This record gives sequence, C-alpha cells and structure tokens, in this order.
Amino acid sequence: MSRTVYVNGDYLPEADAKVSIFDRGFLMADGVYEVTSVLDGKLIDFEGHAVRLARSLAELEMASPIGDDDLAGMFRELVRLNRIEQGMIYLQITRGNPGDRSFVFPDASVPSTIVAFTQDVPNLAEPPVAKVGFKVITIPDLRWDRVDIKTTQLLYPSMGKMLARKAGCDDSWFVADGAVTEGTSNNAYIVKGNRIITRQLGSDILHGITRAAVLRFAAEAQFEVEERAFTVAEAQAADEAFSTAASIFVMPVVEIDGKTVGTGKPGPVAVRLREIYLEEMRKTAI
Amino acid sequence: MSRTVYVNGDYLPEADAKVSIFDRGFLMADGVYEVTSVLDGKLIDFEGHAVRLARSLAELEMASPIGDDDLAGMFRELVRLNRIEQGMIYLQITRGNPGDRSFVFPDASVPSTIVAFTQDVPNLAEPPVAKVGFKVITIPDLRWDRVDIKTTQLLYPSMGKMLARKAGCDDSWFVADGAVTEGTSNNAYIVKGNRIITRQLGSDILHGITRAAVLRFAAEAQFEVEERAFTVAEAQAADEAFSTAASIFVMPVVEIDGKTVGTGKPGPVAVRLREIYLEEMRKTAI
Repeated sequence: MSRTVYVNGDYLPEADAKVSIFDRGFLMADGVYEVTSVLDGKLIDFEGHAVRLARSLAELEMASPIGDDDLAGMFRELVRLNRIEQGMIYLQITRGNPGDRSFVFPDASVPSTIVAFTQDVPNLAEPPVAKVGFKVITIPDLRWDRVDIKTTQLLYPSMGKMLARKAGCDDSWFVADGAVTEGTSNNAYIVKGNRIITRQLGSDILHGITRAAVLRFAAEAQFEVEERAFTVAEAQAADEAFSTAASIFVMPVVEIDGKTVGTGKPGPVAVRLREIYLEEMRKTAI
Repeated sequence: MSRTVYVNGDYLPEADAKVSIFDRGFLMADGVYEVTSVLDGKLIDFEGHAVRLARSLAELEMASPIGDDDLAGMFRELVRLNRIEQGMIYLQITRGNPGDRSFVFPDASVPSTIVAFTQDVPNLAEPPVAKVGFKVITIPDLRWDRVDIKTTQLLYPSMGKMLARKAGCDDSWFVADGAVTEGTSNNAYIVKGNRIITRQLGSDILHGITRAAVLRFAAEAQFEVEERAFTVAEAQAADEAFSTAASIFVMPVVEIDGKTVGTGKPGPVAVRLREIYLEEMRKTAI
C-alpha cells in the first residue's frame, strides 16, 4: 500500500512527494529532523521531540514553520491515514528553496520546507534483535563538532552503519580521544553493578530524548546514574552495555569489537530499563 | 528567463526540477558535487573536475551514473540552452531514492540521482571584489574529518559565510589546531617574498582543482611553492594572502580578523596568478 506523506501542508501519495532540487536540504544539508515512535497508534514522547526540534531550529537560526499543536495534529493524521499501530514518524525541516544555490542563507521571506512520513514497523516494541542484543564495532568519530544539533548531515553515521554490517554487526559506536561518544543513531551506556554510566551532554553527542527519559526512569528505579565519558576497554569490561534511541528504545549491547560484554546475553539492567521505558511511555503517549 | 536544468536524463524548466523526499541527498546528505566554471561559453578545467568527481564517488562507494564524455556533453548542452557566456555549472550526484529512509545503503540496483544547473554570472572573470580583495574572519573548523570528499554536507561552510557577512566581511577561513585549513569554499594561501605557502593535501582540506592548476602555474612562473600549515598570525604578517576556487579563480585577501595584510590592497603575486590562471585556463577550455 502506498503511504500518504506530508509535504508543505499537503497530504500526498508518496510517489508524488517531491522537493525542488534547489531546496537547501538537498543542496547543503541545511535541515534538521526528528524521529518519533508510535505505539498503540499513539505518539511516544511527542513533547520531548518538539522541544528538541525547537532547539535545533534555534541553533541554526531557522524559522519554525509549524506550531507544536499543529505538528501533533499532523503526526496524528499521518498515523490515521497510514493505519500505523507501531512504527515511526520522520519529520524534516529545511531552510527551504530560495530558487538558486548560495552559501548565503536565503532571505527570511523564503518559507521553510517541511516534510513528514510514517514507517510501519509492526514489531517495533518486540523486535527479535532485542532478545539477543546488538553487536557493535567501534570506529573513529569523524563527524562535525555540533552533533547536538540534529541535522541531516548523516553521511558518516550511514557509513558507520555499513561498516558494522560488513563486520557482521548491528551498529558502530563512535570513539573520540579514546572515549565512546555514541552510536550511529543512538546514545551509548555501560552498567557496572548498580551504576549506569553514559557520556555527559555536550556538543559531541545528541541530546537523546530517549536518553533523558531512560535516565529519569533509572534514577527512579534506584540506579545510580553517572554522566561521564568511558573508554572502549571499560565498556568491554562492564557488566552490561546498551544503546537508546526513539527507534530502538533500550537495546542491549552484548559484544564490542568482538569482545563479549558480561554474559554475552542481554543483561538484567538493560532488559528492566527497556520494560520500564515502554510501560511508562505508553502511559503518556498521545 | 527560466533556466533549463538537468535531472536524471531530462532537460526541464527549473520550476519542474524536483527529487523525491526519499532521495538520500535530501534525507542524509549522501551526495557529492562539483562546480565547474564557464568562460567564453566553454568549460574550464572539465577534466580536473571529472577526475575529482570520480574520486569522491569512489570514496563513498557510490556508482558513477554518467561517463565523462556524456557529462561534458550534458554540461555543454546546459551552456547552450541557457546561453551562458560566463558563469558556473553545478553538478550533484546522490545515492538515489531507495523509496524509504534507512541508514543502510540502498541496494546497488537503486540508480543514483544526478542533477545539474547553470548559474549565469556575466562578470565572473572580472567581479568588482577582485579589484579590492576579500576581507576574511577566522572561525574554528567544526566540519567532519573527510572534507577531501566533496560532499553536500555544507551546513557549516554556509554558517561560516553568514558569520563573515555579519562581521562585514566576505568569507571565513577555518582554523584547526592553531592553523588555517581553508576557506568556506576555497583553498587558502599566503605569500612571503617569492614563496607561496598553502596547506598540504590531506583529509582536512578540499583537494582544489583550481589549487592544483594555480600551484602548477606558480611553479612555472618561478615562484617557490611550500605546502604546509600556517597560523593566523603568520597569515596576518604575510606580504599577501589569497584564496582559490573554481568560482573565484584567484581572489586576493586583504584583511584577516580586522588586521590588514600587506598593503591592504590586492598584492602583485595574487593579481599575477589570477591573470595567468585565467589566460592559461581559457586556452584549454572545451
């Protein structure tokens, strides 16, 4: 079945969903995005994503083309039109189409481009891989220095995903100055006893919406949360490791660069946090 | 007059030139580009750009959708259709439209997207700014670590251009570890006596096609060429400074972070190299 997608105010068949070749999103990666999960036909943590979207736009001095209420309404309409029970909604906003290419930002009168589409993932909450965990490799973090802004400059994360695939693994974790920054599209964690360790917020990691929720739930569940950098060796020697993102929730990591982490099976902390996250976020889904 | 542009084999009015929102160039900046100058209605250094394009594609394991002869033919057809005497041809190739979004590269059967368009710049060879020179500011180089691949991840260079504008200047030079890497879309040089100094090739600068030609002409004109990193202070204290790129050829730089370079007017070496470059490249234009 063809999807119905959203492009600049219109709901269109996906085959008709196009943007100008002069769109700055196409010519210069001058755009930001958000991925919001859908469970039981409802939006997970919509507010968190709306807040981060506003921050990304503000950092780039890009006008917001849509208010939060209209955005939620548009997301819900896409969910309804495409009959999504479980899946994702992808949203992208670019600086629009000034009609020609220039490194100079277009005049403020040029409207932003806004597109959104759903991805139907019937087993999003219970994918087979969550039962066995991710195997990851580590690669140098070659990305730009403002990955806290959620831009569409995703070529290197995509290359990292391919490098992982070629190594027979599920994902890559980036390493800068000897420490893990994050995964290709997720935040990275290790567990030592009752402590959950994840890199502190900064311009070198994405300020994960799932990260914020998971750390809140972890603290509520009496885990100690330590926000600091950790090395690959420390991660390999940890009791557990896991990643979080809107599309994978809490994903156990059982192998890093060929070395087994903990028992080599999803650990109890990651499994428990995944359960808590799904349970709690379903309660507040809209 | 509306331009005729090229999109995946078709010559179209620019208003009809569109790509899918699922194109990886739009969603992930998974694309490369080249800008080729046109003087006297002919292509400047076409071969240099074709060679670099092939390298960018190979580095990203992206298939080339067009041979060099067909590419030259397409460029010439765009020049003819749009009656370009002086200007530029922009070419972009992306990994195409797999029909959905994924960090995993699409199957090799998905065709690349190829688009091209002209920009009419009647005074390209003799712009007023070449008579007075660029004023530049320096800013931290926050780009990714493979800028030798000419990808469309141009958000930061665009931001750098805007920072320069806000400072009343023409461009920004990027600085990493205390040394100048390059300008937002050009290579950077300083002149000391008979020596022309520019950063050595590496993954931290673009391998400029204009750079290669200018250094060749400089050596032929008995200048010493020294390829090494230089600091901002060294640049400010130099006899001259300049930038090179396909769109500006050799552009004198007369001010760096508010400090006058040399006499504060375009220096004789930059002016001479600009003349030599234009004269020599016109001879071999096709």
